[in-house]
Amino acid sequence: MTSKTLSSPTHRSRNGWVPPNFYNDLDATLAKAWGLLDLGVTDRRSPFHTPTIATIRGDGAPSVRTVVLRAVDPDRRTLRFHTDRRSNKVRELVVDPRVALHFYDPAEKIQLRVDGRATLHVEDAAAAEAWDGTRPFSRLCYGVSPNPGVEITDPRMAAQETSGDRDAGRENFAAVSVDIACLEWLYLAAHGHRRARFTWEGQNPTAAWRVP
Amino acid sequence: MTSKTLSSPTHRSRNGWVPPNFYNDLDATLAKAWGLLDLGVTDRRSPFHTPTIATIRGDGAPSVRTVVLRAVDPDRRTLRFHTDRRSNKVRELVVDPRVALHFYDPAEKIQLRVDGRATLHVEDAAAAEAWDGTRPFSRLCYGVSPNPGVEITDPRMAAQETSGDRDAGRENFAAVSVDIACLEWLYLAAHGHRRARFTWEGQNPTAAWRVP
Repeated sequence: MTSKTLSSPTHRSRNGWVPPNFYNDLDATLAKAWGLLDLGVTDRRSPFHTPTIATIRGDGAPSVRTVVLRAVDPDRRTLRFHTDRRSNKVRELVVDPRVALHFYDPAEKIQLRVDGRATLHVEDAAAAEAWDGTRPFSRLCYGVSPNPGVEITDPRMAAQETSGDRDAGRENFAAVSVDIACLEWLYLAAHGHRRARFTWEGQNPTAAWRVP
Repeated sequence: MTSKTLSSPTHRSRNGWVPPNFYNDLDATLAKAWGLLDLGVTDRRSPFHTPTIATIRGDGAPSVRTVVLRAVDPDRRTLRFHTDRRSNKVRELVVDPRVALHFYDPAEKIQLRVDGRATLHVEDAAAAEAWDGTRPFSRLCYGVSPNPGVEITDPRMAAQETSGDRDAGRENFAAVSVDIACLEWLYLAAHGHRRARFTWEGQNPTAAWRVP
């Protein structure tokens, strides 16, 4: 390393674009992906805070909706979200636990696609810990009646819990953890997109570039 | 209507919140939904410009990715996006045309979930018209080689078309139209969320509120 410029991990292209450190580096790509997921948990303004999750309906058709990312564990390769155990997505997950999550950050120009299997937690220690971590305002929706998704003639018929009991709605609360089997990365860049796929069997990922 | 205040379509709540006109009105809700979809086509900065679409893999698991909304037709209840006919999603759509699309606008606090059936256009008039409407820069990606999704050892092996031929990549271009069967609306508001479902058999929708 005789020159600071030459030893820089990035290089400046002719028109001044500096590729990010992960541009041609699978390890750095995976690290960036976990970093964005982590930010999605802690920063409510991050687009990764509200991924879309797809499940399979009873008739085999796909179904999608937003969830809020509540936890990510890179070592165990899990993520977590919360939902109402009376919801349609819980009914679907119980029949077929295969899910796909979609994250997209338009400013970063990064899309993550996560394939995994969901596990429902309703009365175990994981559910209790997740419930303890929720804010009072977030708990209100679990007290809604009638059940979520039920047809009503007047929208004002959906009543939220107002008893003031901090544990009202607890019986309807579910934490869903997802074991990540595959993570597919897409980075959009005018100089050439980058697509990579990370799959796990055991602890170490198989990582490969793909044609974007 | 003896008073202008009383005849106002909105009413001011005690703390000053003014409900939008669609808050308790199914017709206005549907009109707002179509309006947001239309904006998603014309305004590239709209979050509705880049919905997530879920398809079904050969093994029955869900698969998700971003697409760009290219057209919406409220009368025919169709929407359209473009893709590479060599892509995995096209392979999936040919086997099972059932799709679910997800739109979410964090500023508007509105989520739309669309269920429908996809039709692939590759060599018909619809595909030709869609191709004619694409910009030269957008066409470049359809000339990429090797095929999209193929594993490569070096990310720089993915080469875009550079011949300068404006119709290079045309043979890989596909327009996908989706016939909308169901549209589910969710509006998040501190005063009470609103959820509604519109389904069609024939021209007129069946509209109903649901518990959010």
